Amino acid sequence: MYDIIVKKRDGGELTKEEIYFFVDGYTKGDIPDYQASALTMAIYFQGMTQEETATLTQAMVDSGETIDLSAIKGHKVDKHSTGGVGDKVTFIVGPLVASVGVPVAKMSGRGLGHTGGTLDKLESIKGLEIEMTKDQFIHNVNTHKLAVAGQTGNLAPADKKLYALRDVTGTVDSLPLIAGSIMSKKLASGADGIVLDVKTGSGAFMKTLEDSKNLAQEMVNIGNNLGRQTVAVISDMNQPLGFEVGNANEIKEAAEILQGKNVEDLRELSLELASHMTVLAEVFTSYEEAYEALAKNLENGKAFQSLRNLVEAQNGDVSMIDNLDNLPKAKYKIDVKAEKSGYVAAIDAESIGIAAMYLGAGRATKDDEINHGVGITLNKKIGDWVEEGEALVVLQSDDEDSQASITKVLDAYSIAEEKVEKPTLIYTVIK
Amino acid sequence: MYDIIVKKRDGGELTKEEIYFFVDGYTKGDIPDYQASALTMAIYFQGMTQEETATLTQAMVDSGETIDLSAIKGHKVDKHSTGGVGDKVTFIVGPLVASVGVPVAKMSGRGLGHTGGTLDKLESIKGLEIEMTKDQFIHNVNTHKLAVAGQTGNLAPADKKLYALRDVTGTVDSLPLIAGSIMSKKLASGADGIVLDVKTGSGAFMKTLEDSKNLAQEMVNIGNNLGRQTVAVISDMNQPLGFEVGNANEIKEAAEILQGKNVEDLRELSLELASHMTVLAEVFTSYEEAYEALAKNLENGKAFQSLRNLVEAQNGDVSMIDNLDNLPKAKYKIDVKAEKSGYVAAIDAESIGIAAMYLGAGRATKDDEINHGVGITLNKKIGDWVEEGEALVVLQSDDEDSQASITKVLDAYSIAEEKVEKPTLIYTVIK
Repeated sequence: MYDIIVKKRDGGELTKEEIYFFVDGYTKGDIPDYQASALTMAIYFQGMTQEETATLTQAMVDSGETIDLSAIKGHKVDKHSTGGVGDKVTFIVGPLVASVGVPVAKMSGRGLGHTGGTLDKLESIKGLEIEMTKDQFIHNVNTHKLAVAGQTGNLAPADKKLYALRDVTGTVDSLPLIAGSIMSKKLASGADGIVLDVKTGSGAFMKTLEDSKNLAQEMVNIGNNLGRQTVAVISDMNQPLGFEVGNANEIKEAAEILQGKNVEDLRELSLELASHMTVLAEVFTSYEEAYEALAKNLENGKAFQSLRNLVEAQNGDVSMIDNLDNLPKAKYKIDVKAEKSGYVAAIDAESIGIAAMYLGAGRATKDDEINHGVGITLNKKIGDWVEEGEALVVLQSDDEDSQASITKVLDAYSIAEEKVEKPTLIYTVIK
Repeated sequence: MYDIIVKKRDGGELTKEEIYFFVDGYTKGDIPDYQASALTMAIYFQGMTQEETATLTQAMVDSGETIDLSAIKGHKVDKHSTGGVGDKVTFIVGPLVASVGVPVAKMSGRGLGHTGGTLDKLESIKGLEIEMTKDQFIHNVNTHKLAVAGQTGNLAPADKKLYALRDVTGTVDSLPLIAGSIMSKKLASGADGIVLDVKTGSGAFMKTLEDSKNLAQEMVNIGNNLGRQTVAVISDMNQPLGFEVGNANEIKEAAEILQGKNVEDLRELSLELASHMTVLAEVFTSYEEAYEALAKNLENGKAFQSLRNLVEAQNGDVSMIDNLDNLPKAKYKIDVKAEKSGYVAAIDAESIGIAAMYLGAGRATKDDEINHGVGITLNKKIGDWVEEGEALVVLQSDDEDSQASITKVLDAYSIAEEKVEKPTLIYTVIK
């Protein structure tokens, strides 16, 4: 291990044997944390070649179980977002892609965050179960082209252990390590093709377009190196996506899109991602063809029917999505009013997320309970004019006061005198 | 600690508070190894400013006990060598400097190595004791200007712990960390002035003159920053120093120099270092004046008398240095003969050291016993002509066979057809 550290420190390229020696040894506990952290810091400075990065990713996949989706008919295509506030795209893209016959076998987690994870948000729908046997899961996907379940199995344990170490030793921000970490989990989940939604901007992990492109390229390279078709879309996260932040809030907004409503950025990004997914799945031969067919399924109710099928199959209360007013609601609606007139120049997505967490929408620690009914509705987004005293957002809260959230929201909004352009939604696509 | 790692990773300059937070926390065990190794790897890449390096050194000094030499009259000046094979300069410089009235309070260790440490070599002299009370030690120095004792006290424990970590995580070769490590131990030992013998060449830690100069400059900067006069001499280690390697072997050669014998490189380097030491101690006002007086004391027996005083005061058998044939001897003398005629072009010092260790001169592990009588006498040094079949070296061995050592010696010598120049002995002095 010492030799491996020094080789990388001096800018050398690690061999497949060396990378597996490290990943296997570290996973088993034969290689101590202090050597792993020295190596990751050396990688931070010296980088990794495409081949090293791909090998590292594969080694992390091989460190644990992998999910076998071969019993599911057709091309399985997965989507992954690098994370942002108000990102409910999964609930739109899943049913939408399923509506054209592409199987979506979504395994997801809960995790910590400003709002709940995919599973928590889905559980806003009364009765919806996410625990099921593998056979039931595969049956549901084969029948309805769509199922969402809690992630089981010990996927990429090397990544889990290494990420925890990097998190406390200052080596999270290493492009090959970030890319390898994300891709190892995706690859272990067994999809044939992967569409990545790489967020960029003030509310994203990657703040600049260049960094986001580099990360996207790195992940696409890994996918291609390891024989999985991978496409990355670079999309904006300079403000929350759509208008709703929370759990029931986000399910509601996603369902509205599936019912044909046009929430511009959210609908557009969903169609973009779904188009790439269905092309990868070889259901369509071109992006344009895919886009047209998918947009039609948003209008004609087919995409929404896919969501209904999912909810029914997983014992959820369908009346809640047929009539979105039936979704859980908070006790109070609190307007957060603009303190001056002007154009919205910026909305710090992270602050909006924290404001939602203060309301109870997310988990700060593993034991926190999610409050499905609370959340934030944005009335104003970047470029919009707002009058002094007009509501910037409406908080749905169980606490009449909610001062911490109000302060956080006011901090998040920047109001300028001059007209500000809406940010670009989709910057580029990397294949 | 996370913030400190990231600050250094990004090229920032750590404050005094941050450096002490790290050193204190790491020494106490509050900061885990894996964060310390990440930080040292970041330091490896980003370096440290002079001020950071000095602060790190002081923090490591402050992490443990320091030796109070204030009860010793006069300027105390210490010498430190970065280490080489055949380096018995301490046994010459100590008595020589003492002979002009400069107090030498030498505290030393044993350690692992090709030959024993300073204490082990001295113990070649029958009866010589290196354990004594602090009062006895100070009394001896005040009376004879010279005493050598085993190092007691917990000096620079932060350095000890950090060095052990760096050793297994690939961050030994960081200039500020090497310099800080050496200087922290010297500073904790309480000398007023320090003369450093920085070795350069194939047998040294620093292989190139440039690296050696950089290390020397770094250490001189630390000393000056922390108020200790520091001079560094860059000297050659492209072959062993002098002709003798071992324990009794090295005591013998040192004593011969003190008795007026001229072993060119060894005598010259000793006078050089001693001259700087006595100038730092303000006994002489110029290097030239010091050199002349010290050279005289090698001729007139005064320097040798200082060694006798030391041996007597520490209950050693003086007859062993009065008649060097009385020193411990090995059972066999084994000639290692040249396999072809030519000029000696190179002698790999490390291989000679390992050959000596195979004979039993050193310790590979803490529990090994030193054999004081075994060693190696070089008959040929770089530039010398050797006939095929002529002895390159004579092994003093207790094993009639000694094949491993013979092979190692033959490996160490390169014989060339063309005449090779003797290497420069002293390259430069950095103050």
